[in-house]
Amino acid sequence: MANLGFIGLGTMGGQMVARLLRKGHTVTGYNRTRSKAQWLIEQGMRWADSPREVAAATDVTFAMVTNSAALIAIADGPDGLLAGLSKGKLFVDISTVAPGVSRTLAAKIREKGADMLDAPVSGSVVTLQQGKLSVMVGGRAETFARVKPILEDIGPKVTHVGDNGLALTMKIAVNLNLAVQMLAFSEGVLLAEKSGIRRDIAVDVMVHSAVASPMVQYRGPFVLQQPDQAWFDVNMMQKDMLLAMELGRQLNVPLPTTAVSNEFLTAARGMGMANKDFAVVFDVLAKMAALPT
Amino acid sequence: MANLGFIGLGTMGGQMVARLLRKGHTVTGYNRTRSKAQWLIEQGMRWADSPREVAAATDVTFAMVTNSAALIAIADGPDGLLAGLSKGKLFVDISTVAPGVSRTLAAKIREKGADMLDAPVSGSVVTLQQGKLSVMVGGRAETFARVKPILEDIGPKVTHVGDNGLALTMKIAVNLNLAVQMLAFSEGVLLAEKSGIRRDIAVDVMVHSAVASPMVQYRGPFVLQQPDQAWFDVNMMQKDMLLAMELGRQLNVPLPTTAVSNEFLTAARGMGMANKDFAVVFDVLAKMAALPT
Amino acid sequence: MANLGFIGLGTMGGQMVARLLRKGHTVTGYNRTRSKAQWLIEQGMRWADSPREVAAATDVTFAMVTNSAALIAIADGPDGLLAGLSKGKLFVDISTVAPGVSRTLAAKIREKGADMLDAPVSGSVVTLQQGKLSVMVGGRAETFARVKPILEDIGPKVTHVGDNGLALTMKIAVNLNLAVQMLAFSEGVLLAEKSGIRRDIAVDVMVHSAVASPMVQYRGPFVLQQPDQAWFDVNMMQKDMLLAMELGRQLNVPLPTTAVSNEFLTAARGMGMANKDFAVVFDVLAKMAALPT
Amino acid sequence: MANLGFIGLGTMGGQMVARLLRKGHTVTGYNRTRSKAQWLIEQGMRWADSPREVAAATDVTFAMVTNSAALIAIADGPDGLLAGLSKGKLFVDISTVAPGVSRTLAAKIREKGADMLDAPVSGSVVTLQQGKLSVMVGGRAETFARVKPILEDIGPKVTHVGDNGLALTMKIAVNLNLAVQMLAFSEGVLLAEKSGIRRDIAVDVMVHSAVASPMVQYRGPFVLQQPDQAWFDVNMMQKDMLLAMELGRQLNVPLPTTAVSNEFLTAARGMGMANKDFAVVFDVLAKMAALPT
Repeated sequence: MANLGFIGLGTMGGQMVARLLRKGHTVTGYNRTRSKAQWLIEQGMRWADSPREVAAATDVTFAMVTNSAALIAIADGPDGLLAGLSKGKLFVDISTVAPGVSRTLAAKIREKGADMLDAPVSGSVVTLQQGKLSVMVGGRAETFARVKPILEDIGPKVTHVGDNGLALTMKIAVNLNLAVQMLAFSEGVLLAEKSGIRRDIAVDVMVHSAVASPMVQYRGPFVLQQPDQAWFDVNMMQKDMLLAMELGRQLNVPLPTTAVSNEFLTAARGMGMANKDFAVVFDVLAKMAALPT
Repeated sequence: MANLGFIGLGTMGGQMVARLLRKGHTVTGYNRTRSKAQWLIEQGMRWADSPREVAAATDVTFAMVTNSAALIAIADGPDGLLAGLSKGKLFVDISTVAPGVSRTLAAKIREKGADMLDAPVSGSVVTLQQGKLSVMVGGRAETFARVKPILEDIGPKVTHVGDNGLALTMKIAVNLNLAVQMLAFSEGVLLAEKSGIRRDIAVDVMVHSAVASPMVQYRGPFVLQQPDQAWFDVNMMQKDMLLAMELGRQLNVPLPTTAVSNEFLTAARGMGMANKDFAVVFDVLAKMAALPT
Repeated sequence: MANLGFIGLGTMGGQMVARLLRKGHTVTGYNRTRSKAQWLIEQGMRWADSPREVAAATDVTFAMVTNSAALIAIADGPDGLLAGLSKGKLFVDISTVAPGVSRTLAAKIREKGADMLDAPVSGSVVTLQQGKLSVMVGGRAETFARVKPILEDIGPKVTHVGDNGLALTMKIAVNLNLAVQMLAFSEGVLLAEKSGIRRDIAVDVMVHSAVASPMVQYRGPFVLQQPDQAWFDVNMMQKDMLLAMELGRQLNVPLPTTAVSNEFLTAARGMGMANKDFAVVFDVLAKMAALPT
Repeated sequence: MANLGFIGLGTMGGQMVARLLRKGHTVTGYNRTRSKAQWLIEQGMRWADSPREVAAATDVTFAMVTNSAALIAIADGPDGLLAGLSKGKLFVDISTVAPGVSRTLAAKIREKGADMLDAPVSGSVVTLQQGKLSVMVGGRAETFARVKPILEDIGPKVTHVGDNGLALTMKIAVNLNLAVQMLAFSEGVLLAEKSGIRRDIAVDVMVHSAVASPMVQYRGPFVLQQPDQAWFDVNMMQKDMLLAMELGRQLNVPLPTTAVSNEFLTAARGMGMANKDFAVVFDVLAKMAALPT
């Protein structure tokens, strides 16, 4: 069993730590707000007062933070991750950040004789709890080999996709499908409903059909009742779409369904739903079809 | 156990009969080419010489034929299904035909004191064999109640969506998602590939991700190697897209991702791939991105 | 000067007859409602009591009717156009009908030793009055040569595009641009408006810019004030879009902007604006952007 | 007549200076490469050795440079425009740059007691020579009033759209229409061609139709023969599209036809045509339809 660190103990990060503890690993954790970590401390997690302390005390440090800015915030400064890393240690970033930001941090970490992987995941908290999470990994093959068994304790499907930053690119490539699938799903449900099929029945059929991806299975029912809190809101979804479209232009890959779906996310913002789960593209389309939302 | 008839013993129909036989039902079958039914006769299926004979000899007759024209062909004439149906008998059409054609046939069947359901399925032969097929059913609730247990022997998920014809509408609403998901999947894979990720790795990650619908799982690998024979070719897929778009216009439901994806199916035809599995929308996009197909 | 007939004396047809009279031609006209033709009779037009009489009394008969059904209605029957045509006479259809319907009628007319051209126009009544109308002509080259000088009295630009029916196809190809240009125009105006530019100023700039087609010039101001009566309503525009998309599929020509724009026409219908001028695609987009319509 | 300065004497800028000279204005000019200005000096233009000298010697200085970077380059430094401006002088930027860059420069200029307008134009060199250019102007109303008569000597249509930067926004709003109109035009021409109409005839009809914007009139014939040198290449066009889409997202205005057309510009880059006139979106679509390019 390994001596692990974990920075960022929000919903997803916290559940990952719980999982790693159950698998028998030693975990030292840090979170900006300590109170949110109490339940994990009760399950045996050790507490550290800064990212630096986490990195100093462990062999492999994980992080799960909100965005590029948050990653930079935990990495830099006297109490930062970089200050705690030294030769032979590893840092595995599970956060979804810009590929360039990740590469820059990886270069700094290597200067210290340590190494870094980007390891974003595809799936929600539910997927994690079902033990079905997929992990994409970018970085050196030998570093990947060292960390792979630990990552398999988080999710069963762990894939090395290439060099540093490429796992983040892969995640963006996966995520553009989320928005497109949700809009296509909405088209199908609204078509069925206007034909005379009850909306809940249409959703039920759809989530048991050949097009029922895990995303469609958990987000499809949102068109019957929006969740109190967004799982992934329009702004966050659109952030990923823009990363995808920026890449598409740089690399000359046309992204027709991505581009069209993105405009419906923009319309959702126009209609005041920027902070709702991105399943509200259904509402945009329903309004165009004069159906209740 | 029930006394069943089955008209149309192709790949899908044949596998269904085999499944019904294994469940203990008596099945009397008919196929235009008798030789293709030999393996089922060896498993205990009774043979009838015409649709009329099938209907006359059984309580519930199923049909699985290619399209509207084929359904009309087995229904009409002195040897047709209608000639064999009488008071109390049932006809369950599993084929994908135009909703209007199905409703017209249902009306004729009711004049004879019999009844009809449309019961198209979502999924492939593989899904059927895995016992995961979904069945959508349109027609009277009391008729549905009589047939439901038998349909559950075909697939575990059987849903009554509404009146006659509406199950076919529901299937069209599901199927538009197939083409859109496939194009969005292609956008993701090509984006990953041009970023430097191996195509096979990108596919592997995608088919284990949150966007991996059953369709993505079985069709995704086609972008690595096209199947020798199309599972569902561009022409067939586009037929369903056109039905969807026709409905969309009649009912005033905008279908933005459907419309865009349909143009890539048209391009696939333009590029000479009308008879390939519709997964070739990947090739259309790859050509636009100057990647090998 | 020629001995001409004209069937269908609505707004456009009536103005054409007035123009032909001013050029010195003899015109015999027929309209379902005679009262609407009174102003033309006062300008010297002769009246005939049926399409047959028009054709019998003249060398070249024009028609300007609403759609395929109306063309068939004036052509067939004992009082129809066909009954009045004989060897050497010509029929020139200016209406926009389905290419197939036009070809079928042309074949019947040839059986009588007469000949037919399809000659749809691009432009509005305003364009006609400005003397800027374009005429596309389909049919035999020698027939075209006979009629060309007369058509030039209607509009200055007369082009022989190919065999019978092809002028109608050409018109459909032109018209798909109408809907797309109007939606793109709306995108531009709304973008300017949300940036802080007054809507009327944005329209003014646009209608004097490099993108100001005649259509943009006369329809652009509609987004400031919808006309009391539609010039070309959503239903009519969508009819042409569907003809275009049907052709696109038959001929394997992808029509991406046509397909997307068509969905916004569908949304206009969904929002109850089917009978408004198709400039209301602006309103659909404005609603999505939460701007006043 | 006014005492004018002009920085940037390329094709467009040079023609503008020639025009201003013909109208009787005094013009002092500067260009990075002096030899390109020789023909203007022969027509009476005074030469200055730096942007600073131009601004110092004149009341109103115009600039027509390539992009934001070029504008910053002529503005800053000891020989820059800013160094030459003083109380009461005006700077009018005709270049197409990012609205934010323009606003920042305007603020610096006001600190010196001078003022600035952004005044981008819509149209090509041909439009300028025909005396039909449109000028959009952003900035203070009183400054606009001073400069308006001079701008009218460049093009007949001069419109004050709002505050600084807004004329650039307006230009972006106009320009998105260029790409969309060109793609829709291509759809129409290819549809006609596959129906059996000669491509040159289809183009001829289109450029005389209701959809023939000035852009369609001069760029439409490019699909018959690409110009030796791009008038406005794919990269430049896509730069404007991205500015439009960025604005669309900031302001929550969906831009469906812009988004789709942009993907075809991306495909043009994918196919190696980044430096061709953006009329090559026709070639992208022709390849998808298996027609010669």
